[in-house]
Amino acid sequence: MSPIAEVRVTPILISDPPLLNLQGVHQPYTPRTIVEVITEDGAVGLGETYGDLDYLRLAEAFAPKLTGSALTVNGLGPRVAACTRQVGAERIDNTVQAEGLRGSRTLAKIAAAVTSAFEVAIFDALGRELGVPVHALLGGKVRDAVEYSAYLFYRWAEHPEPDEPRDGWGAALDPAGVVAQAKRMADDYGFTSFKLKGGVFEPAQEVAAILALHDEFPEQPLRLDPNGAWSVETSLEVAARLDGVLEYLEDPTTGTANMAEVARKSALPLATNMCVTAFDEIPEAFRLDAVQVVLSDHHYWGGLRATQDLAAICRTYGVGLSMHSNTHLGISLAAMTQVASTVPSLDYACDTHRPWQTEDVITEPHTFSGGLVKVSDAPGLGVELDRDSLAALHQRWLDSDVRRRDDAAAMRRVDPAWTAPGFPRW
Amino acid sequence: MSPIAEVRVTPILISDPPLLNLQGVHQPYTPRTIVEVITEDGAVGLGETYGDLDYLRLAEAFAPKLTGSALTVNGLGPRVAACTRQVGAERIDNTVQAEGLRGSRTLAKIAAAVTSAFEVAIFDALGRELGVPVHALLGGKVRDAVEYSAYLFYRWAEHPEPDEPRDGWGAALDPAGVVAQAKRMADDYGFTSFKLKGGVFEPAQEVAAILALHDEFPEQPLRLDPNGAWSVETSLEVAARLDGVLEYLEDPTTGTANMAEVARKSALPLATNMCVTAFDEIPEAFRLDAVQVVLSDHHYWGGLRATQDLAAICRTYGVGLSMHSNTHLGISLAAMTQVASTVPSLDYACDTHRPWQTEDVITEPHTFSGGLVKVSDAPGLGVELDRDSLAALHQRWLDSDVRRRDDAAAMRRVDPAWTAPGFPRW
Ligand SMILES: [Mg+2]
Ligand SMILES: [Mg+2]
Repeated sequence: MSPIAEVRVTPILISDPPLLNLQGVHQPYTPRTIVEVITEDGAVGLGETYGDLDYLRLAEAFAPKLTGSALTVNGLGPRVAACTRQVGAERIDNTVQAEGLRGSRTLAKIAAAVTSAFEVAIFDALGRELGVPVHALLGGKVRDAVEYSAYLFYRWAEHPEPDEPRDGWGAALDPAGVVAQAKRMADDYGFTSFKLKGGVFEPAQEVAAILALHDEFPEQPLRLDPNGAWSVETSLEVAARLDGVLEYLEDPTTGTANMAEVARKSALPLATNMCVTAFDEIPEAFRLDAVQVVLSDHHYWGGLRATQDLAAICRTYGVGLSMHSNTHLGISLAAMTQVASTVPSLDYACDTHRPWQTEDVITEPHTFSGGLVKVSDAPGLGVELDRDSLAALHQRWLDSDVRRRDDAAAMRRVDPAWTAPGFPRW
Repeated sequence: MSPIAEVRVTPILISDPPLLNLQGVHQPYTPRTIVEVITEDGAVGLGETYGDLDYLRLAEAFAPKLTGSALTVNGLGPRVAACTRQVGAERIDNTVQAEGLRGSRTLAKIAAAVTSAFEVAIFDALGRELGVPVHALLGGKVRDAVEYSAYLFYRWAEHPEPDEPRDGWGAALDPAGVVAQAKRMADDYGFTSFKLKGGVFEPAQEVAAILALHDEFPEQPLRLDPNGAWSVETSLEVAARLDGVLEYLEDPTTGTANMAEVARKSALPLATNMCVTAFDEIPEAFRLDAVQVVLSDHHYWGGLRATQDLAAICRTYGVGLSMHSNTHLGISLAAMTQVASTVPSLDYACDTHRPWQTEDVITEPHTFSGGLVKVSDAPGLGVELDRDSLAALHQRWLDSDVRRRDDAAAMRRVDPAWTAPGFPRW
């Protein structure tokens, strides 16, 4: 177990399809930050997190402070958070619209997401030095494969400009398009549960899409996530319509009080990755029984150990646990799979955007079989960095002026009058 | 990382001084259970827990089930708990009086204490196989030494029978005796905080002892723990008298509702290892703000990872964290020190009975310097089993009919009319 000799932080731009959500549409390219923690003995640990400029700045500010440190993760969060003062609170941009998908934006949340990349990289390096998988450093796996859910999106067939990245999925803008997408997800990857990103069309159309999925997959768990787009009244109408159809309804409305009111008046379990995304948001939300399922996400919560902490809190308070995903590459999928394998109470299939990403920075991207990703028992995360790919995606970042994800700006390229809607949209 | 080849469970009897508490007095000998987890590669991991017959039976029932298992701890608790059904709930003896010091007695709590011994032994074995200290398997130490508090007891000079073990501490039955004991604790071990086990004499005498300690050590943190002996009214009277003197008041009264009432009406923080000693007791106690400090104890809570889980919950809910101790040997002190070194939010000096124990099963018992125990960086727990000592203490167990701790029975040897008092005693 040698100390950390060097830390590298590399911003990249990865292609992203035109997936629609409440805020707008995914840009053709979206930034990610890749972290490498290199030990004196030469082990290289990998981590991955958001690439928006505020995250990148903080990661770059913190990285040199790790040099000379042991491969330990306890106390890492406060060390990163201390750097937010150095980077300067005034430099944190509070106007980035994509953040609206995560609930309130705070410096502490940015710090947690940056912490997660370093924490994962430290675990990866430690596992490589000791010759054990990361799950062994997290108390051991309790399952050999982790189940993921298909993440369905309303989407355009392609981005507006001809030279922008495209894929073969085609458009999905109505119930038939959603069902066709789901069938391909099931055929290609074996997913047996399905989540639809809602908040794009008026609720009746999204209810129709869920009912069409239910017709096609009558026995399979379904989820709908409008990212808080609805009023309490609309939420209750949708919940009543989809009771018995949905496994859970994700963030129908915004804010703990509204979620609590919907939960009180509806039988459907409510899940969230907006109302409760940081430890200090837990006590009030749990006291009000505002959410019945919390979506863990090691980027949000500050790492793999923090994900286990969240699991312990949810278990203690009788709240369910699932897993959220944002656009990510194979390093994060490896980390998600490792930690998910260690949490006995993770009873829902995890979300993943992974099938939508056609690029990666690892040499052997994961495959899904039966909706499952096998838990690697190789040392560390079990993935290897593809340095050619990393260099190319970093060069793309250097050549571009895209420095953050901004779904509203992307939508304005097609609809110049577009602004991210206020709450509630419906 | 080789699988588990063999598991040994060894009951022992260790000598114990005549320490007084609400229930009675410590017996001359008290049982402990020593666990050895031996891997196929020959690493031996050590664990230690309660030795009362119910714990021992469950440990013996579970031990063979570990053979062939990987060195993983996640999911261990439910596996042990499943054996309680095998051992048979009807065989669990609910009359053991010493258990009254821990709040309600449940099968789940017995299972957690048994789990802890196996979990610690697995961590020790894993650390030895990988060549890293247990703290590295818990996310890394955040301090190089762990602070302990002197654990002061009212006590007799010696046990009633002449052939029973004795030590040189002498009696402590009044404020002067308590102060003299504290001075020796400070001189011999460097402790700078002091806890008095109360519930032995009427509250006014125990208040006088605390005030005498405060006169002797005016700047040093003091704690008083009557094990729930007092009514709400008495608790409030003592709390008012000792406000500004005590660091915290531990379990003045019994039950969450009573603790909550005392907490509501008093400025003194209340600590507990009776009101909240299992995860399912947390939500109500925290909702009522019944306790301001929870005493962790890896035996109570089911292991080192469970202790970290508890720490995460306390941190999230703004509840303080300290550490409880019951009669233990060096294996448990090593485990306590390892986990305590990993918890940033463990802001209080930990309890330890250790100075009262003159016997041990490790080759080099820990030393306290300045009240601190150095955190071992040796592989595993950093302690080695003294097989001669283990054999001798096991032979004592074989030769004796003491099968459980029963402080009330021990008191009846001197006072035949003694029964453990009902609540509240005062
Ligand atoms: Mg969501
Ligand atoms: Mg106590």
